[in-house]
Amino acid sequence: MTDTPSDDPRPYSPGLEGVLAGETAIALVDGANGRLLYRGYPIGELVEHGTYERVAELLWTGEWTQEAGLTPSPVPGPVLSALRSLPVGTNPMDAVRTAVSMWGSLNRPSWPPNAEEARAMTCLAPSALAAFARLRDGLEPVEPEGSLGLAAGFLHQLRDEVPNEASARALDAYFVVAAEHGFNASTFAARVITSTRSDVASAVCGAIGALKGPLHGGAPTEVVNQLHEIGSPERAEAWINEALDRGERLMGFGHRVYRAYDPRAAALRKVAEGMGSTTEWLALAVKVEDVALRILAERHPDRPLKTNVEYYTAAVLQGIALPPDLYPATFAIARHAGWTAHAIEQAGDNRLIRPDVRYTGPAERSVPRAAARV
Amino acid sequence: MTDTPSDDPRPYSPGLEGVLAGETAIALVDGANGRLLYRGYPIGELVEHGTYERVAELLWTGEWTQEAGLTPSPVPGPVLSALRSLPVGTNPMDAVRTAVSMWGSLNRPSWPPNAEEARAMTCLAPSALAAFARLRDGLEPVEPEGSLGLAAGFLHQLRDEVPNEASARALDAYFVVAAEHGFNASTFAARVITSTRSDVASAVCGAIGALKGPLHGGAPTEVVNQLHEIGSPERAEAWINEALDRGERLMGFGHRVYRAYDPRAAALRKVAEGMGSTTEWLALAVKVEDVALRILAERHPDRPLKTNVEYYTAAVLQGIALPPDLYPATFAIARHAGWTAHAIEQAGDNRLIRPDVRYTGPAERSVPRAAARV
Repeated sequence: MTDTPSDDPRPYSPGLEGVLAGETAIALVDGANGRLLYRGYPIGELVEHGTYERVAELLWTGEWTQEAGLTPSPVPGPVLSALRSLPVGTNPMDAVRTAVSMWGSLNRPSWPPNAEEARAMTCLAPSALAAFARLRDGLEPVEPEGSLGLAAGFLHQLRDEVPNEASARALDAYFVVAAEHGFNASTFAARVITSTRSDVASAVCGAIGALKGPLHGGAPTEVVNQLHEIGSPERAEAWINEALDRGERLMGFGHRVYRAYDPRAAALRKVAEGMGSTTEWLALAVKVEDVALRILAERHPDRPLKTNVEYYTAAVLQGIALPPDLYPATFAIARHAGWTAHAIEQAGDNRLIRPDVRYTGPAERSVPRAAARV
Repeated sequence: MTDTPSDDPRPYSPGLEGVLAGETAIALVDGANGRLLYRGYPIGELVEHGTYERVAELLWTGEWTQEAGLTPSPVPGPVLSALRSLPVGTNPMDAVRTAVSMWGSLNRPSWPPNAEEARAMTCLAPSALAAFARLRDGLEPVEPEGSLGLAAGFLHQLRDEVPNEASARALDAYFVVAAEHGFNASTFAARVITSTRSDVASAVCGAIGALKGPLHGGAPTEVVNQLHEIGSPERAEAWINEALDRGERLMGFGHRVYRAYDPRAAALRKVAEGMGSTTEWLALAVKVEDVALRILAERHPDRPLKTNVEYYTAAVLQGIALPPDLYPATFAIARHAGWTAHAIEQAGDNRLIRPDVRYTGPAERSVPRAAARV
């Protein structure tokens, strides 16, 4: 357990790539076969037959229950005060992180983390983000509506109107596919924090911070910009060919884990197709995707790039007219279910997560005495 | 980079024990030989010849500079408002985490993290903790005094009086030994978060959350209670023998990493001895330690337990009459130097930290259709 000099003979695993750092029964991310299972259930079936509330309960408890009836919760006074005091230009991820930290201060979640705390945090997050988004626009926050689920309730609190069925359904589907994805960096940060026997609010604060980084949370606005530039299905072929000829990357295609088609993108596309023309952006995305996949397969027949989840994330979030700077924070509120499920699982069979490190600094030396303390 | 089923043949490293997860030039923790080096300099020399401000600069820049002149900074209005809105019973670690999160929201630290941001955060932390500690006692926060360093300035802002020389020196020594300790769980959390290209405030929020857990931040109040019970050097021998006869553990002895004497405890003891009787608690701690080490060596001549840093942490913090529930948060403000140094180092040669996980959940199955969405 000692940090060691650089002549240490043990294998060096920077980034921990390929190192099995723990066990989980929550999700299987099977990149080779394009499968994502939550507690054994394929993500496509969960999107088709489930809701985010039910999927969250599944992640926390392992059980496929009746509707859990989770709805957005009111934002506690001190959390709201903190959000009010933030400058208009605050990064929404910072706002959500601060709201979660304040919530933890007020509620003092206990050890070990439990499903009740997970529910409370997951129900607070959409309300807190919606409140921040309104406050920065000079609007007052909207009280939650008890009859709406978390995705629809988020839209309601954002706009002070009950969303239409198509928007609510599309966002709920996004929440389901964004809820969990194995040992990504944010979830791993949450587990490292939990492993010290710290509380679930501390774990989620750390996770939000990790998701904030573009190497993890991504840059879905780039896909939006791309669809904006393409503008209509007829222009897709020419635009894509020209972009690839210029050596540019097509945004929303290719994934580090998934060699086959990203099952989350497939599930979201299916929802999009079922909606017909009610959401123009989704319809555009579907048509552009077909063209892009055909061109990519023609150009790289050996290893065609497949659509990734970011592509349909952008289509869904743009389709419901969410401001692009809220995309990462919306991802964060949906991922609350997974983060808190991992905190519970980590605590259930806990062991401090504490790797070693290879020392590459100066050899032992003396403090220069000329500069010594008087 | 795929999460894998449980028949995965690769080695399984729960807790990452013994796995070299990265490189660092900041500190060498050499448990076998009882050495702790910051940038090559032994911790004992740094305590003797340095100050916390200078050591912090060393950690950030690698250079042993002239006095850096860091002093506690004023608490920004929105951070102070957030601290004011916290209930009296708030865990001080939650208060500091919230203050840091709010600071990050206001200041929007950039990528990559830099020494200027590290200085700002390290100078804010003592002011924020002192402000919280006063507010919960119904007192108004105290403006920082520009002539005091961070440890003395913390005490000044806590009590609205300039601390005596001995107290300031003892706390400064504690800040130096607490500033950094390799890839512990909180520092590792900070590096995981930074590895996504997130910001240094997000990294420190995660680190505070990890340090909050008793498996990492420890329980120094138990040492205080032990010294309280012993009460005087004359009672030490009988009390210790009786405790060990009852099969109890002696608090403040033994360490997972250090097989030899913990160099941080040695450095703090030296400071304590140099102060004579000015701080009674330190004098008591020194005498009780001598008795305890002698008894432990007699009882376990094969592997005598050595004093650990928690022992002298308790002695120093009790010696300056700090309320015990502030000990972990005081640790956190001192560790700001190390956390931020690691964020800078991680960003300097970055690679996403993202281990794999062994899947142990159910095999693929179908969502029960009876319970399907209508």
